[in-house]
Amino acid sequence: MAPAPEAPGISHEGETTPHNNFSNVEATNKSRVTIIGSGNWGSVAAKLIASNTLKLSSFHDEVRMWVYEETLPDGEKLTDVINKTNENAKYLLGIKLGKNVVADPDLENAVKEANMVVFVTPHQFVEGICKRLTGKMKSDVKAISLIKGMEVKPEGPCMISRLISQQLGINCCVLMGANIANEIAMEKFSEATIGYRENRAIAEKWVQLFNTPYFIVTAVQDVEGVELCGTLKNVVAIAAGYVDGLGMGNNTKAAIMRLGLREMKAFSKLLFSSVEDSTFFESCGVADLITTCLGGRNRKVAEAFAKNRGKRSFDELEAEMLQGQKLQGVSTAREVYEVLNHRGWLELFPLFATVHEISIGRLPPSAIVNYNEPKAVLISSKL
Amino acid sequence: MAPAPEAPGISHEGETTPHNNFSNVEATNKSRVTIIGSGNWGSVAAKLIASNTLKLSSFHDEVRMWVYEETLPDGEKLTDVINKTNENAKYLLGIKLGKNVVADPDLENAVKEANMVVFVTPHQFVEGICKRLTGKMKSDVKAISLIKGMEVKPEGPCMISRLISQQLGINCCVLMGANIANEIAMEKFSEATIGYRENRAIAEKWVQLFNTPYFIVTAVQDVEGVELCGTLKNVVAIAAGYVDGLGMGNNTKAAIMRLGLREMKAFSKLLFSSVEDSTFFESCGVADLITTCLGGRNRKVAEAFAKNRGKRSFDELEAEMLQGQKLQGVSTAREVYEVLNHRGWLELFPLFATVHEISIGRLPPSAIVNYNEPKAVLISSKL
Repeated sequence: MAPAPEAPGISHEGETTPHNNFSNVEATNKSRVTIIGSGNWGSVAAKLIASNTLKLSSFHDEVRMWVYEETLPDGEKLTDVINKTNENAKYLLGIKLGKNVVADPDLENAVKEANMVVFVTPHQFVEGICKRLTGKMKSDVKAISLIKGMEVKPEGPCMISRLISQQLGINCCVLMGANIANEIAMEKFSEATIGYRENRAIAEKWVQLFNTPYFIVTAVQDVEGVELCGTLKNVVAIAAGYVDGLGMGNNTKAAIMRLGLREMKAFSKLLFSSVEDSTFFESCGVADLITTCLGGRNRKVAEAFAKNRGKRSFDELEAEMLQGQKLQGVSTAREVYEVLNHRGWLELFPLFATVHEISIGRLPPSAIVNYNEPKAVLISSKL
Repeated sequence: MAPAPEAPGISHEGETTPHNNFSNVEATNKSRVTIIGSGNWGSVAAKLIASNTLKLSSFHDEVRMWVYEETLPDGEKLTDVINKTNENAKYLLGIKLGKNVVADPDLENAVKEANMVVFVTPHQFVEGICKRLTGKMKSDVKAISLIKGMEVKPEGPCMISRLISQQLGINCCVLMGANIANEIAMEKFSEATIGYRENRAIAEKWVQLFNTPYFIVTAVQDVEGVELCGTLKNVVAIAAGYVDGLGMGNNTKAAIMRLGLREMKAFSKLLFSSVEDSTFFESCGVADLITTCLGGRNRKVAEAFAKNRGKRSFDELEAEMLQGQKLQGVSTAREVYEVLNHRGWLELFPLFATVHEISIGRLPPSAIVNYNEPKAVLISSKL
C-alpha cells in the first residue's frame, strides 16, 4: 500500500477485526505495531502512532492495542466499543483514535505478529505481563516503555525498561516528556524525549512512529536518564504540592522545583554514571517537571495534604480525590527513600527524603521549606 | 563593635543621619555598603543586606541607600519618610528595612565612602549614573549589579555589569535569581545566584552580604551566563504569556519554556564562549525562568496581548496595565532581535525572533506555537 504522506486516510476500512488474523496486505518488510495498555495515555499513544502508520510505508497501517477487557455500564465490552466507534469510551472519550486502531482483549494474540511493542500499563502490572509474554513474541521484537516508575528490589532499583529488556531479552527504549495525555489528544503543541541505549536506528524508528507536527519527539542516548526523569519528577511534584498547600508563592515553588531537578540529576548520576546532564534540559527533564508541578494529580493531592497540615493521610485523600487510585509520587518517594537509606545517601538528598518523611507523617508539611531544620532541603545546595 | 550573631538589633541608633558623615565607629577594615537605587527590589536588597551587616563584624552596620528623591502626595520627601519610619512608603510599604538603612538623596555623598556598591536601578539609568560616579568613588570599590537587561551598541550587546566595570574601572559581580521582591520581603524561602568573573573571594563577600536563612545565595564563576539568564528570561516570559493568552495549557507552556531555556543557553554561549551549561540549572536559570513565566508582569501583559489577538499594542496595554511603565521583555526581545539580525542568527533562534515579531504585529500571537509556519519555534530543535 502506498503511503498517504499528506492527508491521513483509511483505504482498507473493515479489513481487520480483533481475534482474526492480521491484515492480508502483503508486505513482509513492514513493521507491525502493538500497544500494550489502553488507558488514557495508551489511547493517546495509539492515536499518535495510528496517524503515522498510515503515512509511513515502512509500517503496516494497523495498530493493535491490547485492552484489559471491561464491561461498560451499558453492558457492552470495551473492546467492542473501541472497534465500533474508534473511541476509548472509558479512558479517552470524544477522541477518535483512528480507524486503523484495533482493540484486542487477548494479550498473546495482540503481540504475536508484532515487530514493535509499546508498553503503557500501570507500572505494577509490567512484571506480570512480561511473564505472560515470555516466549510468545517474535525474537527480534523491539519495545518502548512509556511507563513511569521503578521497581525497588533488594539488590537495588530496577528501571521498567530494564525489567522489560531483561525479562523478555529484547531491546527496550523509553519515551517520556511533558505529556498531559488529554492536551496531546487535543493536538496542542508539546514535546517528548526518547531515550535509547545504543542502537540509534531503532530509536529513530520510534521517533518516526510517535512524532507528529504537534508532538515533537527527540531521541537521546541516555535511557536511564530519560526514564529516571519521568519517574523522579513525581516526587518533586509532591514537594511542589506541599509548597502550594502552604501558600508559599511562586519564588519558593520555583526554588523547590529547581532543588528537586538538582536532586533528580544527582540521584540519576549516582545510580548510573552514564546519565548525561544535558538530558535534564530535554522535554523529559525540565519541561515535564514544570508541567507536573503546575498541574497533575500528584501536586494536587499533596496540596490538599499540606492544607490539612498532614492530618488527613494520603490514603484518605487518594480515596476521596482519586477514587482510590494511588499517587505515583508517594510510592516513588518511598522507593527512593529506601534506596537512599540503604546506600547511606539520605543526607545528600534532603528534598527527596523530606517529601517521604512528610508523606508518612514523620515531619510536618512545612518541613519542605523549613530552613531552621538541619535536615531541611537547603542542605541540598551542597550536592 | 561586636557583631550580634543571633538576634539582629541596633546598638547605635540615631548615630547616623543622611548628609552627615558616616558612623564614628573606628573600624578601618570594615566595609561600607551603599545601595544605588531604592525601588521595590532595591528596598528588599537593603533589608537583606542590613540584616547581615548587623551580624557580621567585617561590615559597618550602616547601609546607605541612594534614593532618587520624590515628594510624596502628603508633601513629605521620600528619604525623610524612609529615615523616619524605616519603610519605603512608595515602593515597599509595610516592610521594615532595618534601622541601619540610611536613605540619602545625594548620589555622590552616598557612595563616597563606600567599599561595596550595589546597583539596582532601572537599566536605562545605569550609563548616566556611571558618568556621575566617575572619579567620585574609592579606587578599590567593588560593585554588584542586580539589574536585568543589556545595552545594544553598534559593536554588539553590552551587559550591564561590563558597562559598570568598564565605565568605572571596577570589579562588578551580578546577582540574579528567582526573586519576586515582595515574596522575599515577606521572608518566604527563595534562592539567588551570584556570578563572578575571577575573584572568588569578592564573590564570597557578596554572598555573606545577601545570604539569609530564607534567601540562599550561591556563587558561580560565570558572570555573563548569570546575567544573560536574568535578561533573557523576560523574553521567554513574553512567549509564556502568549501561550497563556491562547489558552494552550500546561504542556504547551512547559514546552515553550523549555525551548526558551534552550535558546537562552545557546544565545549566551554564542555570545560568550565562557558561559557554562551548569549555570542554567542554578536559581538564575531554571528557577527564575519558572517564577517569571508563572507570575510577573511580562507574562501578564503578553497574555492580555494574545487574548486581544495582537489588536491592542503593547504600548497601549502597558499604559493601561502598568501605568505607563514599560515591559523589560518587550525591549529585550527587540534588542535580542537586533543582535540576531545583525549576526545572521535569526533562523537559529525562532522562539526569540518570533516573540519580537509578534510583539510588533508582524506575526499573530498564534505563531508562537504555529507548527505549520516554517519560521515557527519548532525549528529550534535543531539548535
